[in-house]
This record gives sequence, structure tokens and C-alpha cells, in this order.
Amino acid sequence: MKEIYVSDLAAYEEGKLFDSYFLVLARQFRTTQTNKPYLHLILCDKTGQLEGRAWEPADPRIGKDIERGDVVKVRGCVQRFNDRLQMKLEQLRKAYPQEIDKGEYMPATTYDVAALWNQLLGFVESFSDPHLKMLLTSILEDPKIAGAYREAPAAKQLHHAWLGGLLEHVISLLTLADRVAPHYPILHRDLLLTGVILHDIGKVRELAWDIGFEYTIEGVLLGHIQIGAGLAERAMDSLPAFPSRLKTLVLHMILSHHGKLEFGSPKLPMIPESLMLSFLDDLDAKMMAMQMEFDKGAREGRPADELSGKVWALDQRQLLNTRAWLGEEKEQEISQ
Amino acid sequence: MKEIYVSDLAAYEEGKLFDSYFLVLARQFRTTQTNKPYLHLILCDKTGQLEGRAWEPADPRIGKDIERGDVVKVRGCVQRFNDRLQMKLEQLRKAYPQEIDKGEYMPATTYDVAALWNQLLGFVESFSDPHLKMLLTSILEDPKIAGAYREAPAAKQLHHAWLGGLLEHVISLLTLADRVAPHYPILHRDLLLTGVILHDIGKVRELAWDIGFEYTIEGVLLGHIQIGAGLAERAMDSLPAFPSRLKTLVLHMILSHHGKLEFGSPKLPMIPESLMLSFLDDLDAKMMAMQMEFDKGAREGRPADELSGKVWALDQRQLLNTRAWLGEEKEQEISQ
Amino acid sequence: MKEIYVSDLAAYEEGKLFDSYFLVLARQFRTTQTNKPYLHLILCDKTGQLEGRAWEPADPRIGKDIERGDVVKVRGCVQRFNDRLQMKLEQLRKAYPQEIDKGEYMPATTYDVAALWNQLLGFVESFSDPHLKMLLTSILEDPKIAGAYREAPAAKQLHHAWLGGLLEHVISLLTLADRVAPHYPILHRDLLLTGVILHDIGKVRELAWDIGFEYTIEGVLLGHIQIGAGLAERAMDSLPAFPSRLKTLVLHMILSHHGKLEFGSPKLPMIPESLMLSFLDDLDAKMMAMQMEFDKGAREGRPADELSGKVWALDQRQLLNTRAWLGEEKEQEISQ
Amino acid sequence: MKEIYVSDLAAYEEGKLFDSYFLVLARQFRTTQTNKPYLHLILCDKTGQLEGRAWEPADPRIGKDIERGDVVKVRGCVQRFNDRLQMKLEQLRKAYPQEIDKGEYMPATTYDVAALWNQLLGFVESFSDPHLKMLLTSILEDPKIAGAYREAPAAKQLHHAWLGGLLEHVISLLTLADRVAPHYPILHRDLLLTGVILHDIGKVRELAWDIGFEYTIEGVLLGHIQIGAGLAERAMDSLPAFPSRLKTLVLHMILSHHGKLEFGSPKLPMIPESLMLSFLDDLDAKMMAMQMEFDKGAREGRPADELSGKVWALDQRQLLNTRAWLGEEKEQEISQ
Amino acid sequence: MKEIYVSDLAAYEEGKLFDSYFLVLARQFRTTQTNKPYLHLILCDKTGQLEGRAWEPADPRIGKDIERGDVVKVRGCVQRFNDRLQMKLEQLRKAYPQEIDKGEYMPATTYDVAALWNQLLGFVESFSDPHLKMLLTSILEDPKIAGAYREAPAAKQLHHAWLGGLLEHVISLLTLADRVAPHYPILHRDLLLTGVILHDIGKVRELAWDIGFEYTIEGVLLGHIQIGAGLAERAMDSLPAFPSRLKTLVLHMILSHHGKLEFGSPKLPMIPESLMLSFLDDLDAKMMAMQMEFDKGAREGRPADELSGKVWALDQRQLLNTRAWLGEEKEQEISQ
Amino acid sequence: MKEIYVSDLAAYEEGKLFDSYFLVLARQFRTTQTNKPYLHLILCDKTGQLEGRAWEPADPRIGKDIERGDVVKVRGCVQRFNDRLQMKLEQLRKAYPQEIDKGEYMPATTYDVAALWNQLLGFVESFSDPHLKMLLTSILEDPKIAGAYREAPAAKQLHHAWLGGLLEHVISLLTLADRVAPHYPILHRDLLLTGVILHDIGKVRELAWDIGFEYTIEGVLLGHIQIGAGLAERAMDSLPAFPSRLKTLVLHMILSHHGKLEFGSPKLPMIPESLMLSFLDDLDAKMMAMQMEFDKGAREGRPADELSGKVWALDQRQLLNTRAWLGEEKEQEISQ
Repeated sequence: MKEIYVSDLAAYEEGKLFDSYFLVLARQFRTTQTNKPYLHLILCDKTGQLEGRAWEPADPRIGKDIERGDVVKVRGCVQRFNDRLQMKLEQLRKAYPQEIDKGEYMPATTYDVAALWNQLLGFVESFSDPHLKMLLTSILEDPKIAGAYREAPAAKQLHHAWLGGLLEHVISLLTLADRVAPHYPILHRDLLLTGVILHDIGKVRELAWDIGFEYTIEGVLLGHIQIGAGLAERAMDSLPAFPSRLKTLVLHMILSHHGKLEFGSPKLPMIPESLMLSFLDDLDAKMMAMQMEFDKGAREGRPADELSGKVWALDQRQLLNTRAWLGEEKEQEISQ
Repeated sequence: MKEIYVSDLAAYEEGKLFDSYFLVLARQFRTTQTNKPYLHLILCDKTGQLEGRAWEPADPRIGKDIERGDVVKVRGCVQRFNDRLQMKLEQLRKAYPQEIDKGEYMPATTYDVAALWNQLLGFVESFSDPHLKMLLTSILEDPKIAGAYREAPAAKQLHHAWLGGLLEHVISLLTLADRVAPHYPILHRDLLLTGVILHDIGKVRELAWDIGFEYTIEGVLLGHIQIGAGLAERAMDSLPAFPSRLKTLVLHMILSHHGKLEFGSPKLPMIPESLMLSFLDDLDAKMMAMQMEFDKGAREGRPADELSGKVWALDQRQLLNTRAWLGEEKEQEISQ
Repeated sequence: MKEIYVSDLAAYEEGKLFDSYFLVLARQFRTTQTNKPYLHLILCDKTGQLEGRAWEPADPRIGKDIERGDVVKVRGCVQRFNDRLQMKLEQLRKAYPQEIDKGEYMPATTYDVAALWNQLLGFVESFSDPHLKMLLTSILEDPKIAGAYREAPAAKQLHHAWLGGLLEHVISLLTLADRVAPHYPILHRDLLLTGVILHDIGKVRELAWDIGFEYTIEGVLLGHIQIGAGLAERAMDSLPAFPSRLKTLVLHMILSHHGKLEFGSPKLPMIPESLMLSFLDDLDAKMMAMQMEFDKGAREGRPADELSGKVWALDQRQLLNTRAWLGEEKEQEISQ
Repeated sequence: MKEIYVSDLAAYEEGKLFDSYFLVLARQFRTTQTNKPYLHLILCDKTGQLEGRAWEPADPRIGKDIERGDVVKVRGCVQRFNDRLQMKLEQLRKAYPQEIDKGEYMPATTYDVAALWNQLLGFVESFSDPHLKMLLTSILEDPKIAGAYREAPAAKQLHHAWLGGLLEHVISLLTLADRVAPHYPILHRDLLLTGVILHDIGKVRELAWDIGFEYTIEGVLLGHIQIGAGLAERAMDSLPAFPSRLKTLVLHMILSHHGKLEFGSPKLPMIPESLMLSFLDDLDAKMMAMQMEFDKGAREGRPADELSGKVWALDQRQLLNTRAWLGEEKEQEISQ
Repeated sequence: MKEIYVSDLAAYEEGKLFDSYFLVLARQFRTTQTNKPYLHLILCDKTGQLEGRAWEPADPRIGKDIERGDVVKVRGCVQRFNDRLQMKLEQLRKAYPQEIDKGEYMPATTYDVAALWNQLLGFVESFSDPHLKMLLTSILEDPKIAGAYREAPAAKQLHHAWLGGLLEHVISLLTLADRVAPHYPILHRDLLLTGVILHDIGKVRELAWDIGFEYTIEGVLLGHIQIGAGLAERAMDSLPAFPSRLKTLVLHMILSHHGKLEFGSPKLPMIPESLMLSFLDDLDAKMMAMQMEFDKGAREGRPADELSGKVWALDQRQLLNTRAWLGEEKEQEISQ
Repeated sequence: MKEIYVSDLAAYEEGKLFDSYFLVLARQFRTTQTNKPYLHLILCDKTGQLEGRAWEPADPRIGKDIERGDVVKVRGCVQRFNDRLQMKLEQLRKAYPQEIDKGEYMPATTYDVAALWNQLLGFVESFSDPHLKMLLTSILEDPKIAGAYREAPAAKQLHHAWLGGLLEHVISLLTLADRVAPHYPILHRDLLLTGVILHDIGKVRELAWDIGFEYTIEGVLLGHIQIGAGLAERAMDSLPAFPSRLKTLVLHMILSHHGKLEFGSPKLPMIPESLMLSFLDDLDAKMMAMQMEFDKGAREGRPADELSGKVWALDQRQLLNTRAWLGEEKEQEISQ
């Protein structure tokens, strides 16, 4: 039903009316410096967010009962103020349930979640260790966890900050781990993959994503490492035959996956599988950060022979897109 | 029954025979460079440890069935080799159960454990928060935990490295916290004291103390912070009415009590009670380290007007005993 | 005489005239981009500061002889520019001496300074060491030092940044130290309290507070540790019988109270009293920073179930008000 | 011809004579405290090194003309002194050229060097970028470089410290890189593999391995990064058609492969290929360090349920062999 | 020909027309929020840079063929917008070659470049080591290098960021090194001076200064240390008799001149000459930063008894001008 | 009178009797493991120190009244034990006053102290600032300070650790500062030289050198920076006309001369003179450390083409003697 997105509005003429639906992230009554009252909203959909102002909040066409978290139907136009876009709202009401397609209001993975989920189950299916297979099956069959695992973003802002991002991140790491593991016969493949699947599972409670992406207070006070370890510990405790040594190793994988104490892991990796997990997690995040920076450069039309700006996620270093600089971009796309 | 201790043997003449009992910390068959076989033992009691050698291990008076962890009766004499004391063992057998007083073989608190335990229960009794009182009661009434809590050392080597050391450390911190808490009305006293009682509880599994003091593998891979948090989490989960917010705070107290990420706390203190706990724990450990260094100086006859050597537990700094240097030591003892 | 304060003006309507008195922190003649001249002032009272502009500086009703440090009487109104409040000044003259109550123009402790001072003297009175008692008496009886000690803020911006703040900070630490000292028999109480009283005394020259709070150049080049040590050294030199060992210890207390070289202490604490002082000073500052952040949250109406923003004085961490989050705020106030 | 190795001598009886050949690493005339002259040698073969002493250096059977770097034939016996093994030399002469098999005197890879070299050439053959293929071909066809590349150890002491170690390390990384590269379409495979092949090429001059493994002075003053960059730069300069942009990227791969300034890389990785190279090089070294520690534990008979000691190459952490601890060692060996 | 400079325009009345010449640093067509097209330029001369806007880009008087790097003649006036100065351009055309004095458009040294160059050659002439003299002669006679060396700035922004800045910096260091060298007989004067002359020579390719000052991509990926070492290595390779030990030392001087790994030097100084070079380079840069801060203070009319603001190039410390604060400025100027 | 030095004894035959004089650094009665009593001494002269044992302490020829700090006459011989040299003492008595030449017993500068002192006074004489000249005159004329200044070592162990070392170090720095100062007109020469003369003056009380070199307790608790600042402050206070601004600057020079907080300077250098002082002090110490390492290498016969070992005073780096490696040593000696 929704046809006009936040990302479309940059191109709109000032003053031209349009109708659309948005999610309300925040809502406040305010007064101008000259004491004129107005309703101030932060509205979003999956493409971004925008401020909106209703200058006649007493107008009967301006819905009074709107709250943070509602989807609303608005009629309004865009305005520009100091180069910043705003919406001026003429009319405003809560959307009817049948008008709401929840997927329209927050950024989401572009992959098919059901397919990713099946890939995940497939990896578990491939395990030869019966205890680890049973542990993961019991966790992934828990409808509360499974539902959250499929929806959760992997982060609030950095990499994979979208619905389904956690699952997408885990599938990428599983595939990568499966490529690398055979190179090192010392590695216990099932334990490594178990670590990949569970390392960030605490994020299902560290983050809240019903209305935008936020850290929960539990998340800030405990962190996803501790939440995930607690969750895994309870799951293992409920499997009577789960070997206690294996339990210690699974918890150690979760605890040590950030690789260094100063990154919030209370333990350094001390087994081959946790060393590998911490490397792959870091490597994948940094490669993803590079890719995102290059995509952004391409979107913004940065010429191929320019360096990026200083990238926060990579210690403020500048980046160069090798293929673009060498002029091999096209060949590459063709050859793939 | 035991009358001669490791600490006594330094004064013994070489060659003079004596009988005594010791705990076997390690046992190995070895050969000299000239291929002479001998039995090599590490023996200890609560005052220290010593090497022993039996040069005729085939002699029928040398017990064959001795293992790590046994208490043995020995007949032998001391020898000195390169200024190091050793025992030469003539005879050796397992002690009979009725000969063994377990308290003789490992260092232990000089306080009355039952009295310390009653102090601990008294603090819990004084709580006004019913949930925290019930939580601690349920943990301290669990006979497995309570037994371990009463016995556990607080560390393998540094401060309070003796049986009962954990309990002694906690009582000291409880008393200190109770002095400081009223100075800051912002503090939730019961939560602070709960943190004190539970912050190191993971040490009951991080350390093993049946035969000497050792870290367990679980302890090395997970650490007492994680073990303690898991233990507390399960205890709270088993109390149906325990408020979830309070649970988060109790876990946060345990997680953050080392105060800094690089000290192995995965979270910084973010509430007044955890900030206070991390300060008091650090302060008490450092004051204890100073006290121990001064005691050692006094034992070794270091003159009052000399600085200590570089103290490892205090960043290699040297220390000075104020009162001794000012010549006020005696007055102090009298006035107390 | 002063009835309208800076903190009141936020609620004023634009354009409505009022009369009041303020202290001049800065004064400059400026020109607009269109070359219109105006007089630019920074005005303050104990509740905050505000910019003021007089658009007709040549108007005879605008006093010409005004300087930094004067208290002025103004007639004007408020204006809002980009959400920032300013004063538009119609008339302006120096206040008459009889109109000025100095206490109105800079933030000051809410405690009774005379009472705090008596508490301080009471602590000194309680000393049993005659030399330290005489030292502090001689310093606190010096009218120049005593006057400054009563007035000085404890900092330019962070904790206790108000007149009387130094004294308030010292009394809080004395009370705290007196609670903690008996827990450690090793501590020389009088030396500890002497350290508390003298540790920040250099701030009477590091800061200037006659017109706003500023660092002096002496303060920036030498620092309050050095200034305080010099002041204490001269005071001890002037007491012929003061023991030289005690002098070394008193100076060491001042030098080492920041606890670490990188915090500007040229020496680490090496005696029990200086270790304790450095801990308590740091602990008290951090607890105060927490309290101030919670007070600010309450003033700004932050809901109890929200974390604070990142707090600069606590390493950018976020904070949570335990009692508020647990909904125990009211009980607490009643029960106290 | 050589039949008795250093590693065999530990089991020898004292005093029993044997004949063998060794390489002389050092040679000095010394005097005992009682002024008895002797000849002191450090002798080695591919299994280790040992001290030797000739007590009658004037004896005509003791060769006078021996120098560092000679292979010698000795007749002697072992002695044990303070648990340390030594050789007592009765006779000693230079070996005849026909007695010397150079491969016997320094540790060397257990792989077939010719096969590794063919693998290396095979990787180059697989390149699609003509410039990089030509660059590597020209370097690897240079007989001076190729000879050194085949022989060089990868380090003096840590990982791959044996003849052929550099080549072995590069082949392992090439295989690993080839597994990982397809996971990231952004990567320029040929450039990545070029970086792998050239990143440590400076070690052919940083190390000397004719008589034991030593750093050269050039190596200490310039380092293998700089030496390798210089070598690569000259090779590219000598290819007239080599694109200048590609040259910059190849040099950047070498310069940044340590990943951090403080590890001696003058530049951080700024392209995807150098980021990947720095991760894989570090990961492979750490996995190798784990494997070596486990092998050492197995050789020394450390029980499976014990942690290793603190491992220098892994920040002093202790390690646990997952499979051994879980008791899966055998299954693993069978299943592979 | 140019009479009006960027630095003059701050004082200009809005709207008053003037004619002048500027260099175009950037050029873009843009649209206002209300879709009004305009031409946006960044214009500069040796005194600074300024934005310019042409509001009628279709006007035939607005040159269409203008590119980044052109010098243009403009007619326009200044405007102020939010306190920021802009130029409004009425007319605009490329300057004719005969109108352009290249020296007017970028900041340049105030010294006579020819004189500085002769000083440099004079230092080389004074060498007694024939190889180093020949090396420097061959480098400085290479017209491509010599030309760039004379023009290059020493940095993009910090010290000596002007045309000729590199040469000026080197002459200052040569003079200083020549003063210090005789104090340490251990120093090899010619090697030290060679290091001074070559340490920053890589900046001739790290920076580009034809149109403003920019880092080249080669500069960002390789850095001036590596570029300079490569350049010096090729120069030494082309001198057949150049001793290989001396070559290693010259390269080591360049590699280690930043003094610490974390400052981008892949090697620490290990010979007296490189230690001295790294100290003098750092000292001279910091003294220059102090001088520049004091000059800025004087230009801005900062009173002598005020500290500077926090200076970025000196770890955010504040500075005080000794002579100014002591009131000795005038005497000094007279006495010199 | 003394003819045989510690440094001579290494070459002595065991058992051969000799007579000589030494200073007693320590004296203890001890017992062997077999309960044999002996007298243990640490004896020294200006060339080093050595242990001595008297095996028949009850023998009437063994002086009973010997104390730490006495010079003694001994008759004995050398013994070697585990490669360590000892003296076996047959006879032992206090030396008669007329036998003692104090200069024989501690290492001392090889320069003429009176000449160095005159150089120092000459520098002061050259000042044009009357206040600084008077300050230094008053300090250097104080017989207690002047005496100590002439005798004090500059350190306990590192650079200039000999009697007169402080003076030697200061003269070297004065000469260096005087070479550098004219290069920077911004520098206040007299203030810089004042800083050089006073920066380490606290060492006259930080160290004790009557019997060996030791830190005093005052030195350890306060440090030479604080002691020196206190000393300078009192000297300036006693000059009624000394300008207060100049006093602040002089104190700042002393406080900041270590250059960084973590090196124990409570303030960073903030004026040109203190920046210069901190650089020169560090540079001179490091050049001296290089020189000492090369001298040691020469004494120990290290070949010119070897690097030094890892040098503690230079961050564990290895060093290379440029001239020796280039084979220019001789030329240099001739040309100087």
C-alpha cells in the first residue's frame, strides 16, 4: 500500500502535497520561540527517517491519539531548512491494521530469511557430534529464540544493522568457517560452527528492534556475551547427557569471541576453535566495512581514483578500491 | 599427632633422624645422571613444602602404593644442597585414617570459620529487601555451595591464599562496605552487600584446593566472573518471584567488579553499587598487600628505616611503613 | 535587592522589559556584518550566564565606564536566536556599592561555610599528634590562607565548581576517611586526615574566582600539587620542632594524591595513608559525578527506565540510577 | 655417513666413546678457574646443538685449524653436569669434503622442496593478470633469488625456523588464501596471491643461514619489509610495461602486511587485498604456534587434561588441545 | 598584476564591486533548494581561500570553459552569510597567460630559494666523504628531483606548509645539526647531514602542489619514508663504487627518522646519526610549532599575560611566550 | 698507599696472599649450612666491589670493631666459586686515618672538579639577567649546596654514576644548550641555562654517596624534581626583589624537565626554554648511553661488524657503531 518512501522525498518539490505511511519513532509537543505550538514527530520507514511538524495540532484532522510505535497515514509536503529536509504535515491519523505491512518500516535483509534459516539448519544437520547437534536443535527449535534469531539485527549502527542482519552475518561466517576449517586438521569443525551460531545469540536480548533499533538496559548492563553465555548455559543444563567438558568449551567460545579483554571478552581464546572464531568474526566485519565504504563511494559518485574519507570502523584509515582504481571494475562484473 | 612441621626443619642438623606426617603433592620415579633410581616426592603441610628423595625405592620399607594426595608417615633426615633444604627418606608409608587431621596439611585462616559464617548470615539477616535476602539465603543454604564457600581460598597465590580465605575476604569487605555505605545515600545497601557476597563466588569452582591450590581447567577457560554469574543466574531463575530488573543488577554487580575491561570485567560499573564494589575490592586488596609486605619485613628483621623491595602486587613500587619509620609502632600496639 | 536571576529568564516572553543586576564577565565592542556597532557583554549571576547586547552603545543611557568585574544594573528584555537566549539591553549602568550583595553573582555552596569551617577545626582538634595539629593550626589560622580556603571552588568545571566547593569537598572526604580509617589499624589517622586537609590546598592559587572561575598562569605552569607542596613545606619550615621525617611524609601525601604518574602525581603512593587518600579522593569524585548526573536527569525529566548519556567524567560510560529504575525512590526518601 | 645425531645423545651412557660429524657454530679457547686450558665448541646438526670440550687442546689428535663453519669429525663421549649434557672430545679433525652431506647439519623442512616449488610456480601459472604473472616469473626465475627462496627459513626462532621454512609458509598461505578469496568477490585474487608470495621475500637477505640462523646487520638495520620492497621495486622497474598503479599496490601489500604500525609496518592495510593478507599471515602464524605447542605437549607426555604452560608467541596465554581433552584424538586420526 | 588578495576581502563592504585574479581549486554546478542553478567555485591565492558563487551561470559573461587549476579573472563583491565570507561573482573568465604570476596563487617561502639552494650545495661541498658527496651531487643534479625539491612544501597543513617549505626545513636542520655535531665526536658528520638532506625527500612524490597541496594516492599508500628510501636506493645502485655498508646506513637513516614504530618508522634509530636526526627533526618541528602559535597570538592581539589555547601539534598543551610574559619583548628585538 | 684494586684481582692466582685497603659497604655474621660461622663483607674501591669472607671470625687478627663505612686493611687471597670471584680474608683491621685517601674508594669523574666548577661559574657570570644571576650565585655560594653539587653523582646506576657526575652532566648540557640556543631567537638564554643548572639539583638530597650510592628515603618518597623545586623556591623567596613571574618560570623549568607526565614530571613543558631543556636532557642521556655501550663493546673486544646486545637504556634496541663498522675509526682518531 505504501508507495512513497523517505528516500524518495529528497527529490520532491517544496509545497507539493503527497500521502504516505510512516512509523512514529518519537512524538513531542513543542513551542516555537514565538510561542506557537506544534507537534514534532520523527517518522521513518525502511529507507530512512525524517522530521515532521504539524503546525496546527489543534486541527481536528490531526490525530490526537498517536504514540511512539504507531504507523500513521500522513498528508503533507516537504520543506527545506538550512539544507535539511522536513515534512510539513497537514493531516495525520493512525493507520488501520489492514493498511500496515510491517516489513515496510524498518530496514531488512535483502536475502530470503526462510532460505537463510534453512541454510543454518543444514549446517546443524551436517554435524557429526550428537551433543552439539542436539544442543543447537533444541535452541533453534525454541520458537521464542528462533523467532528473534530470524529478526534480530546484528548491530545498532555498524555492520548488518537491519532486520535479519544477525542471521545474514552468521550464514556468512558459517560459509567462511567451512572453507577455512579443512586447512587446519587440528580444528573440531562442529565446535567451531557451534561457536559461530551461538557467538552473537545474546543480541536477541541486547538489542530491541520493534520500533527502530535500540540497546536494551539489560543489554547495556550485561552485554550480549554474558546474555548469550547464560542462554547457552541453560540450554545445555536442560540436556541431561550433555558432557560437562563440552559445555565448558561452548561457553568459552562465546566468552572469548571478541579476542581481547579490552574488547569486552573476559577471556582470551585458548583453544584452536575460539582463536579461529575470533579471527573470522573480526575479518568478516572489516571486509564488510570495506565493501560498505566502497558501495557508499559508488553511490555518491566518488571517482575511482580517489581515496575514501577516514573510515571510523577501520581505525580512521582511508581506503582505496583496488579494482576501481585499476579500472578493472567492468571485467570483474562480467567475469562473475 | 603431627609434631614436626616443614617450617621447623630449617633448624635441623643434617643427618639427624625424625618422624613426621606430610601430604604428597607430587610423586615421580627418577634416575640420577649416573643411572641410580630414586623416588622423588613433593611433600607439604600447612607451613610450607619441601622435596624428599628416597634413594632405595626398592627397599620394602618404602611404600609402593603412594599417590598424589595421600598423607604419608616418613622417617628421614634433612640434607642441604646448594643452600636448598631437602629430606632424605629412610622409610615411608601411607598414614592410617585415624592418624590424619586434615587441617594440618594446608594453610588455613586463623579466624574461627563458624564465627565468620555467622557474621555472613547476620549481614544477610539485616537486609530489608526481601528478594535479595531470599536469594542469598537460598544460595548459602545450598549445602554444596555453603561447604565450598567456607573452605575456598580467595586466590592461588596473592592475597588470602589459604583455606577459608574467600570467606575472610568477604567478611572484611562487608564490614568496610557497611562503614562506607551510609556516607552515600544514593547507595542501595542491600544490593551493595549482595554484590560483596556474590562477587567472587565463582572461585568455588575456579580453584581446586583438595591437594594444594590449583586453577581448574573450567576456571582457566571461563573465569570466576562467568562461573559466578552463571551460578547466580540459576539461583535467581529458581526463585519464581525474583524481579527481572533486580536480576539484571545482581548480574551486573558480578560482571563489573574488576572495574576495567582489561582486568577481565566484560562491563564497566554503571550503577553506584557496582562502582563502589569495584573500588572497595581493589582498595582492600592493596591495603592487604601493604600489610603483608610490612609483616614480611618485620619477620625478616628489615629495619624500620628501610623501604621494602619492589612489590609485585603494587606495580613494582617500594613501600614504607609509616608508623615504624616514625618510631610509633609501640604506642600503637598499646593504644589499641 | 536582586530579584531576577539568569535561570528565571528562560521562561520570559520576548520583548517584555525587566530590571536586574548582573556581574560582567567580559565586555567588547563589536560590529555586525552590516557594520552596525554594538556592545557585547557576558553577564552572570550565581545561577548561570547569558550574553547581552546593547544596540545603541552611543546612547547616553548606556554606561561607558563599565569593565570586566563590575556589577551592573540593566534594563532589557530577552530575545531568542536559533533557540539560544540573549538579552537585549536598553539601559545599563554600574551598580552602586550599596546595591551589591557579592554572594548573588557566583555559584556558591548551599552549606553554611562557618559550620563547615568549624567541622574542619573540630577534626584538627581531635588529632593526637601534636606536630600535625600545630601544623594545621598554623596554616588554618593564617588569615590569607583561611580566607581563600573558605572561598575557593574545588575545580573550574567538574565537581564542586562553586564558591566554598573546596571546603565542602574536604569535609566530605574527612568524614569518609574517618569512617574507613578504623577498618585498617595500619593507618596513621592524623597523617591521613592531614593529607585530606592539605591535598588540594594548592587550589587556592591554582584557581582565581574573583570574576568567574579561571586557572591562573601560575596554576597552569605549576599545578596545585606543586603549589600546595611549596605552601606546606614553608609552613613546616617555620615550625622549628617539626620532625623532618614527618615533613617528608606530609609532602609525599600531597605529591602522590592523584595516584598515578599520568594523572600528574610525580610519585606513586608508597605509604598506607597516601594509598588510602588517593583511593578516597577518586572514589568520592566519581560518586559525586554519578549523583550529579542523576540529579541532572531528574531535573530534565529523564524517565527512570532510561540510561544516562555518555558521562565524560566517567570514561564516557552510561549510568543507571538503581533506585529509580527499581521504583524505590520514594520509599528511600521516606525511610531516611 | 653421519649416523649419530645430537638428539640421540641424551640417551647415551656417560663415558662410552662414539664417533660422529657435527657443524661448528662457535669455537673458543678457554681456561678453567684452576687455569687448565681447554677448547670450547658449540656443535650442531639438524636435530639440535650441544657444547663440546676438548681438555687437552695441545694433543696432536686435536685439530688446530678448525673454524666456525667447519664440519668436523669427533671421537668423544657424553658427560652430564648439573643435568646438562656436554660432549667430552678425545679426538677432533676437519671432515673431508666427501664426508659432508650438507643437509645433515641444519634443520630443514620435511616437505619435498622441489614439489613445494612446483606448487608455487603452479599458483603463478594460474594468474590471469599478465603483469603480475610476468613480475613473479621474472623474480622466481632469477637464480640468485630462487635459490635463496628455496633455502631460507621463515624466522630465526619462532614459526618455520628451518631451511625451506619460508617456502613452506608461503605455500600454506597460498592454499589458505585461495580458499578464502572466493568468499569475497571484492578481492583481486592475483594481487592477493602476489602479496602472499612477496610479503616475506626480504627474509632472503634479513637472515643468514649458512652456519646456523642469524640476522644480518642489513636485516637488523632495514628489516625484511624494506629489503623486500626494494627488491620488488627494482624487479618492477625492470619491466618496462609494468603499470605504475599496480606497482604502488604491490609495494603497499609488502609494506602493510604486518597490519599495524607498532608491528613495524609503516602503513596500515588500505585495500582489501592487504587487509586480507595481514589477517591470514597472523592467523596462520598463531594456528601454527598452537599446533607446535600441542605437538610439544604430546612429545613431553603432558596429559590431555592439562593446560599448556604460558605460550610466549600467544601473549603468554595457556592453551588447551580441544580434541585431546574431549578424548576424541583417536577417532579423529581414524576419520581423516 | 594582482592587487587584491583573499586576506584583504574580510574588510570589504558588502556589495562593493572589485576585480581580481584567483586560482580555481574546485568547480561544481549546483542547485539551490528552490532549484535555482548556480556555479560554485573554490578560489584561492597565496593568502588563503574563499568560496565564490555565480548566480547566473548561463550569462555569457560567465566563462564556460573554466576548470580546476585555471587562474581566472573575476568581477564581483563580498557577501556575508552566517558570519562566513563569500564572493558573489558577476563576471568570470580565464586569465591570459601574460596576466599570470604563478607565485601569487600559493603560499611560498619568504626566503630566496636560490640562496637556500646554494646553502644546500655548500653543505654538500663541505663533505669529506667522497661517496656521500657523490651520492648527493648526483641526486641534486637530477633536474627532475632538484626542481621538485626546490618547490615542495614540507607538509600539507602543519609546519612549513608552503612552496619551498621542504628546502627551508632542511636548511634549518642542517644548520642546527652542524651546531650540535661537534659536541659528540662519535658522530659521522657527513652521514648525519646526508640523513638531514634525504630524510624527507620522498615528499616530492608524497605531496602534489600544482593546484593547492594534496597527498597523492601513492603518498597515502606508501608514505614518504618508503618513497624516499626507494629513490635513494636507486641513486646508490647507479653509483657502481658506492660501498654496500654505507648504503645500508643511508637507508637506515631515512627509515628510522620518525624515531618510533608508532610514528610510521619501520625501524628504531640504531646508530648515533639516526638517533640524532630523529631528535633534531622532532625538536625543530616543535620549536617551529611554538613560534607559529606565538606569531598567531601576536597577530590576533592576544595579551602577553595570557596562555595560548590548546595546541594540537603539541599534544593539546597550552603555551606561554616567556619573553612576552616577562615584558622583555622589546629589549629582545633591540638587542638582536 | 693503596696499590691493589678490585679490578686487578680478576687476574690473581687462587691462594696467593696480598695486602690492600677497601671500603666496607656491608658487614654480616653468617653461618654455613654445616653451622660454621663466618664474617661476610662487601668491600669496594673506586674500580668495583667484591665479596669477602673471614672463616675464623674469632681469630684475634680479625678486627671486631668493623662497621659499614670503615676503610679496612686486609690480608687475603682470591678464590673462585662457580666462576665468581671472592676474597678469603686472613687478617683484617680498620685503616688508620693517615692511611686513607678518600678518593680511592668510590668511582669519580676523570675531569678536574675545580675546572668544571669554574666553567659553571663562568656560565653564570655570562648572564645578562640580573635576577637569575643573583639567584644562581646565591645558590652556588651556599657552601652546603656547593659542596654537595661538586660531589654528587648524577644517578645511582645509569649515566654519570660517579662522584662529580652531576657537575659533569650539567657542564655537558650547558655547552650543548649554548650551541643550540642561538639557532632559536625565541629562547631566553639565561632562563634556559638556569634550568640546566637547577634541573637536577634535587639529586643532592635524592641520593646519598658517603658509602656507595643509594637513594635516600626522602628521595624515594619525594623525588629530585620536588626536592629541587623546594630548594629553588626557598632560594628565590630569600631574594626580596626576585620577580614573581620569573619565579614561576624557574619552578616550571624544574618541574617539567622530564618532558612527560609518565616520566614523573607533573607538568608538560609549556614554554620554549622548558621544551628545549627536556629535549637536550633526553638527547644527551641517550647519546651518552650509546657512547658507553660502544666503549663497553671495545673493552670486551666485540668485533666492529657486530651489533651490540639489547640495550636497556635505549628500549632494548641493538646498536651499531657507525665509524667502527665503516672501518673509519682510525682516521677519526687522527683527524681529531
